[in-house]
Order: sequence, then structure tokens, then C-alpha cells
Amino acid sequence: MTTDALALPMAVPAAGLPARVRIHEVGARDGLQNEKATVPTEVKAEFVRRLADAGLTTIEATSFVRPEWVPQLADAERLYPLVAGLPVALPVLVPNERGLDRALRLGARRVAVFASATESFAKANLNRTVDEALAMFEPVVARAKAEGVHVRGYLSMCFGDPWEGPVPLPRVVRVCRALLDQGCDELSLGDTIGVATPGHVTALLAALEEAGVPVSALGVHFHDTYGQALANTLAALQHGVTTVDASAGGLGGCPYAKSATGNLATEDLVWMLRGLGIDTGVDLGRLVATSVWMAERLGRPSPSRTVRALAPTVASPASHKEQ
Amino acid sequence: MTTDALALPMAVPAAGLPARVRIHEVGARDGLQNEKATVPTEVKAEFVRRLADAGLTTIEATSFVRPEWVPQLADAERLYPLVAGLPVALPVLVPNERGLDRALRLGARRVAVFASATESFAKANLNRTVDEALAMFEPVVARAKAEGVHVRGYLSMCFGDPWEGPVPLPRVVRVCRALLDQGCDELSLGDTIGVATPGHVTALLAALEEAGVPVSALGVHFHDTYGQALANTLAALQHGVTTVDASAGGLGGCPYAKSATGNLATEDLVWMLRGLGIDTGVDLGRLVATSVWMAERLGRPSPSRTVRALAPTVASPASHKEQ
Repeated sequence: MTTDALALPMAVPAAGLPARVRIHEVGARDGLQNEKATVPTEVKAEFVRRLADAGLTTIEATSFVRPEWVPQLADAERLYPLVAGLPVALPVLVPNERGLDRALRLGARRVAVFASATESFAKANLNRTVDEALAMFEPVVARAKAEGVHVRGYLSMCFGDPWEGPVPLPRVVRVCRALLDQGCDELSLGDTIGVATPGHVTALLAALEEAGVPVSALGVHFHDTYGQALANTLAALQHGVTTVDASAGGLGGCPYAKSATGNLATEDLVWMLRGLGIDTGVDLGRLVATSVWMAERLGRPSPSRTVRALAPTVASPASHKEQ
Repeated sequence: MTTDALALPMAVPAAGLPARVRIHEVGARDGLQNEKATVPTEVKAEFVRRLADAGLTTIEATSFVRPEWVPQLADAERLYPLVAGLPVALPVLVPNERGLDRALRLGARRVAVFASATESFAKANLNRTVDEALAMFEPVVARAKAEGVHVRGYLSMCFGDPWEGPVPLPRVVRVCRALLDQGCDELSLGDTIGVATPGHVTALLAALEEAGVPVSALGVHFHDTYGQALANTLAALQHGVTTVDASAGGLGGCPYAKSATGNLATEDLVWMLRGLGIDTGVDLGRLVATSVWMAERLGRPSPSRTVRALAPTVASPASHKEQ
């Protein structure tokens, strides 16, 4: 007499979509970085372990920025060794050479730099112009590549900017090209304030394709501020994108844009991908249980619709004791 | 320094989508029908007036079911005359000939019957088999058509059913055909428990097309239980659907399926359609203000992401005094 029996959608593939999607899980970094109350390092480590146990294979672990920039992630040196042995990719953010040094010292094999498509956000987030930020990343990317380390380039404000409004496509394309020319292995196109709609997504991907950027080097990173994240993801998949950023439970937000609510929830994404018959390797029940567990630690319910709908079916305190 | 200036998405059309979409607004009926606390008739009337003022052109007003079935809508006879003069289409639900009599007496020019694709929900919602329900609708549709009244046929549980699981496409097609053969002018395909994903939507629309059902006669009605409603809508638009049901502020839910949260929020839909350059005639600011106003009356915030994001920019108590 309930929907409990319907824990998964019926798989009905759609034409023109990829057979497999890699989820780049950002909950432990992007999701937690704006939490005001300090999350204990061991809780973060356990979160990463549970995400890995749920089948996620790329889990962004933390950020090697200056501790005063992001106090929540000031424990990067203590956290990373706790999870480094997991059989998953564990990218970490590095804004500059000092951050790279810290990450390399701990044995990180994947790092990410974070650029902005707009001057306003480059100034707000990095206190630099777009080109000054790119200049800062150049030696970071070069040294990482020389060490055989995989480099992701995040690009914020690819669609709209809270100060500048809509962002012209050529400006996004220029920074994407610059990051790839520096040696980035992949890019993540961020809709930091969640304003994008599917036609805009398609137009940006087409513009990048025209500029010689292979779609295989592109990931998408949508925020659900206006409820558009999953529709935008569908448009990206239809254009051949196979890497999608998401945050378990929809954790996260942007500190410099007050309306920027959480990232696309990994669970909502997995529901759609399962329904489309697209393999992700994720166990949705375990993932929901993980997000419920994390929500209990943060003291508020997950904003993910799928987590809210499935929580009663997967999570009882008794069945999920601490490992 | 905020997103306030970005009140609207940039319009970037996508290939293969309709130029115009008609939103069938269900907030005043589907959205309110499960509210436990009785909403005063005048508040409902004001809600409908504000929805019309925001540019919605089809606003489902109420339901002429037996008052004890849906106590919240027991005031249909008092409500309808309060809004009948608005220059919009005002469909009303009628389950049987008695309901039709009541609607016709008040001058209703659009009615809707509500069928189920599954036996379990037909039993739960109408205490009849699917075929017994169809037999009940037959004289309703025939008499309405004889009076020149437009008839919509709702079809619930087109994708999944809480008791039966995934619903086979042929079963949905059969009931759709039966409703059209009875004389229904349009159908609304309901994902009552929100489990559908885009490939399933496309497959059902294709199956209906193969069965000779014109896409122009089809509307879609998605629930956001698992966050899939807007992605499913995009898939439907890509298949040529131009009628989309939505509920202002995401009001609503299904009483017989505990996890069935609200309908697709009209605001989230309008955001996407505006971004796609698709005309709806809706003023998003006025619509958000209307949902904020209604949320205040219901005593809880709207679940719509767009309403939550834009509420601070459009709604202050001083600027929206009672009309």
C-alpha cells in the first residue's frame, strides 16, 4: 500500500544517450565546504568511505586551499591519509603551487584547479583577474602533468554570473581552451548559480565542439537553484557528455551568491540514469542511506527529492551502525 | 552582489522544440485538494484570480466530486461563480453524470474525467475496475460533447503504480484509446507517483503515436517525487508535446501514495521554458508572488526551487496587499 516496493525506476533506454556515465561525486568537498559548523575529520572520512562503498568511483575528497579561505576543509592534511587507501579516484582541489605541494606530499594522483569564466567571480573567489588566475594555474598544471597527475579544470559561472548576468559563450570557450592548452585532462563546466536551461547547455557544448574541444574532455556541474539541474544534465547527455558532477544528498551551495542552493543531488541523477538504463555502478539504496546518515550529522534533512522519498525505505538507525 | 538582478534566464532556443507551450495550471484543484486545513473559498478564488493575472490561461478551478470524497473542494458550487467571469479557461473535474450536472448548471465549458491505467489505482481512487470507470465516463463525455463542452481525460499511473510496479505501455495505450474513442478532446498522461524517467516518457509517447493518438491531443502531468519532473517534461517537449500540467509553487500530492510529493512547480517549468525561448504568456515575477502569497496562507514554504530562489526579489508583504 506504499511506494516502498518501487525502489527503482523501470529501465527504458532512450536513443542517442551514452551507455555509461561517470559520476564525479563532490559532496565531501563542494558539498561540505560551506557548512558553518565544523564537521569532524573522522565523519568526513567515513562519508567518503560510505560513498565509495555505494559504488562511486570518483570522489572529490578535500581542498588544499589556504585554511583561512575555507575553514571547513582546513583538515585536508589529516583527512586525505584516512581515505587514500580506498580503491577509488580521490581528486583534491589545489589553487596554486603551494596547494599542489601539499597534495603531492600526501600522494594525491588527481588534482583540480578552479577558474572562472567571468571577471567578477574570478575577483570574488580568487582575488585575481581571469588571466591572472590562469597564469597562477599554469605552473600548477605543468608540474602536476610532469608528475603524471591527472588534472581537472573547474570553470565557474559558465552560464550566468550574479554580478554580470548572462555569460557570452565565447568568453567561456576562451577559458576552456586556455585550461586545455595548459594541459588539463578534463574540464568541469559549472553553472554556479543554477540559471542555465537546456538550450543554453546545448549551445555551449556546440560552441566548445566548434572550437575543437572534445566532448570526452568535458564534465558538467549543475546547481539546482531553479530546479533545472537534471533537465540540463539530460541535454548534456544528449550532446555526448559522459561525466556528470553531483553531490550526495544535494549538499552544497555557493558562498558568494545567496540564492545558489545545492548541487545536483547524486541520488536524483542516479534515479534518472537508472531509468535510462545507463550504468553508473552506484547502489542507490546505499547512497541514500549514506546521505541520510550525513544529514543526521549535519542536523537537517537532505534537499534531494529522491533521498526524501526513499529515506523511509533504506534508513533506520538500527540498520546503519557506525562501521 | 546578489542574484537579484538575474531574475530571468537567458533565452537560448533548442532545436526541435515547440514555439509555444500551454500550461494547464492545476494548483487550485490538484494542488489544494489534499490540504488538511480547509482553505476559505475566497482565498481559493483569489488564488485563481492571481494565477490568471500572472498570465496563466488554463486554470483548473475545482472538482465536482462527492464532497465527502474531497472535503477541501466541497465548496465547488460557491467557488466556481466567483471566478467564472475571468477571461481564462476554467476546467473542472467531474467523475460522473451527477458531477457533470453540477458543473453544467454553473456554466462550466470545460470538464475533465479521471481514469487510471492500473486496476489497483482505479479501485483505490474510484472503487471500480478500469473498465467500470470507463463505462461510468462514457455518458459523461457523450453529454458534455453534445453540449459543446471541452473534455479532458486524466489518466493516472501511466508509468508506475505503488501497488503494481512498472505499468506496461500497452495498458496505458488501451485506456488512452478508449478515452479518445469516447470523445475526449485531450488526455493528460499522469506520472502520479513520480517514478518516470525521460526514456520511459519517450517510449510511451512513441507507443501512443503508433496507436494513432495524435501528440496534439496529449498533455503530460509529472510529479517531482524523485526530482524527475522537469527532465521528463523536456523529453515530452522533444517529442512534440505542447500541453504541460503544472502546479503553482509545486503544491499538491497524491493521498494514496505516501511518497508522492508535489506536482511539477509551474515556476520551475516557466523558468525552463523562458530559457528555451518558448512562449507561455506567464509573468514569472507575478506567478512567484502568487505562490508566496498562497504559501503564507497555507503556513509553509513552497517546495518550488524557483519560488524559493526568487521569493526575496518579488515578494514583500507591503508590495502585495490584498486586491
